Formats: sequence, C-alpha cells, structure tokens
Amino acid sequence: MNENKENQPKVGRFLAGIGALIWDSLNNSYLVLKRAGSKDFAPDVWECVTGRVDQGESFEQALHREVKEELGISVMPQFIIGTTHFYRGSKEPQNELLGVVYCCVPVDTAETRNQLNISPEHKEYRWVTSEEAKALLILGHPTERWLMRVISRAELIRKHLPDELLEIHTQQSFSLDT
Amino acid sequence: MNENKENQPKVGRFLAGIGALIWDSLNNSYLVLKRAGSKDFAPDVWECVTGRVDQGESFEQALHREVKEELGISVMPQFIIGTTHFYRGSKEPQNELLGVVYCCVPVDTAETRNQLNISPEHKEYRWVTSEEAKALLILGHPTERWLMRVISRAELIRKHLPDELLEIHTQQSFSLDT
Repeated sequence: MNENKENQPKVGRFLAGIGALIWDSLNNSYLVLKRAGSKDFAPDVWECVTGRVDQGESFEQALHREVKEELGISVMPQFIIGTTHFYRGSKEPQNELLGVVYCCVPVDTAETRNQLNISPEHKEYRWVTSEEAKALLILGHPTERWLMRVISRAELIRKHLPDELLEIHTQQSFSLDT
Repeated sequence: MNENKENQPKVGRFLAGIGALIWDSLNNSYLVLKRAGSKDFAPDVWECVTGRVDQGESFEQALHREVKEELGISVMPQFIIGTTHFYRGSKEPQNELLGVVYCCVPVDTAETRNQLNISPEHKEYRWVTSEEAKALLILGHPTERWLMRVISRAELIRKHLPDELLEIHTQQSFSLDT
C-alpha cells in the first residue's frame, strides 16, 4: 500500500458487500429470491443473496454468514463472478459500496431443496436455469437486470472452468490471508 | 443488501485495496518490486503492486491507476487471485482493509521490459519465475511470505485456466456494473 497517501483526503472509505449466486449442479439452476414487499428499497424484486460486510469480517466470512442468515444453509464458493461498485442511495462517500460476487454450491445440494429456510427478507424463492431467468426477470428493473448479468457471467465462466480448478477453489477458498 | 441493518452499528466501513501481480507470458515470470528504504512500513521489502482504492473508484479503476502510477504501464487483468482482509496498523475499525488481488498482463508484454518507469515508492524491480521468487523472498517476513503465497496461488490457477477464459476475462474485465 502507498503510505505516502495516508493523510490525503482522497483515500476512500467504503461500505462493503457480497453477492452469492447459488448453483444447483443437479438441476443446472440458480437460486433467485424475491425481496419482501415491506422493503423500502426495491420491494418484490428478484435478487440473489446479498449483504454487507460487518466490521471485522472478510468478504468470505460475510458470504458464509449472510447465506446462513438468509437461507439457513452452508455453501462453498466455486468462483468469483466479478466485483461491483455502486452507491446505496445518493452519490455520496458514505453510501459508496465495493463488493465481490461469488458463485457458490451448497455443501449438500441434494438436501438443499428441502432445507431452505428463507428469512423474512424474502417472500419467495425459485431455482431457475439461465433461460428461465431470462423469462422471469424484468430486465427494465436495474436490480433484476443486474441479476441477469450476474447469472449470464456465471454461465460463461462455468462453461470454461475445468473441474480441477473448481475443486481447488472450493477447497482453498479465495482468502489470501494467514 | 439487507436494509434492516442500516442503522445497526455493526455494518462495517473499510479502507479498500488492490494488489496487482503482473505476469510476463514471454518469460513466465512475475514482477516483484522492492519498497523504498525511506518507507516507514516494511522498507526494503519485496512486494507486488499494491494500493488503496480512492473514494469514487471501483477496484478495477484503482488497479489501473495504481499500476500506471507505480510502473508507467497499462495492464489487463487476467484473473482474480483472491481477496484479502487485514488491518493497516492496530486492530481498529479505521485501519481495517478489504482487498482484491488480480493477476494481470501488460497490454504490450514485449515492450514492457523497456518501458517500466518505477515510481519513488520502489527502489528496484525484478522479473522472477515462481522458483526464483522462492529463492529471493525472505519467507520469515510477513509481507514477503504473503507475496509468495500470492505467486503460488497465481501459478496454480494459471495451470488450470483455459485460454478461452483468460481471453474472456481480459476482454470483459471483472466489473459487474455497467
């Protein structure tokens, strides 16, 4: 890191977030969740698991916590789909968020369909193929258009990723610390 | 994101950083830079390009800016090596940093060896293979041990990543925002 910049105002401070797109390898489908109608932002809109990183957490710790909170299951990250950068509200520094979006598989895919216990944040969930997602999502809505982009990117990456590398990622995770 | 948590204190605020490990495909070697002796933190230690994300930037914008500032060249990210989470100093929220580490190739590898114009942040650079890195780096030093870990992970990922996927990543980048 560049210590010379330490006292310059431009060094950023950010909210941080994760996205978790969950893949069912048995049915080649992705989990999409409909936000509760009571939400002040984007009610009734389809999304993947998302959440903010708590103080003291890494991206991956937040990923595992959020998935557990929102779905009641454990997952393994298979690959990083990409990164994200947006403002939660008006374009001001205190709303600025940087995120990492992971494609994950349930630790136990076969049981996951029975185990899912979604939190009150969501009112409904579905497992959809990429094609079914295109039909379901309202691409005029920014959140749903973004989700379609995430699913399409995940499909493209998965098509090319060899099994050996998926295995390495799930075993070693993506944390470069310790 | 979970709006219900908006007013809870545990939602984190972070410094954000990038790492850029630069790979020379012609010589199968990685760029390592020795920190200037005048640095207050870890002088004379080998590292890759690192830097913090400025307010208003995405991870990838910071990546391109930092590489340009530190080396005077342009690069393309080929893959994400992993993520990082540490404290820049004492373990307090204001020092907490979340980062993404990319493996990159110069836009013009053949010319890069002549074009490198390193900033005063570094006193020396070398291109080293993974084996040469093992001999060069002092693995008792946390920064150099971390760099070796980054290089080893990059080697492992590269060994399995098909060319088609490298091509997709360099063309599309990792940003999921439009």
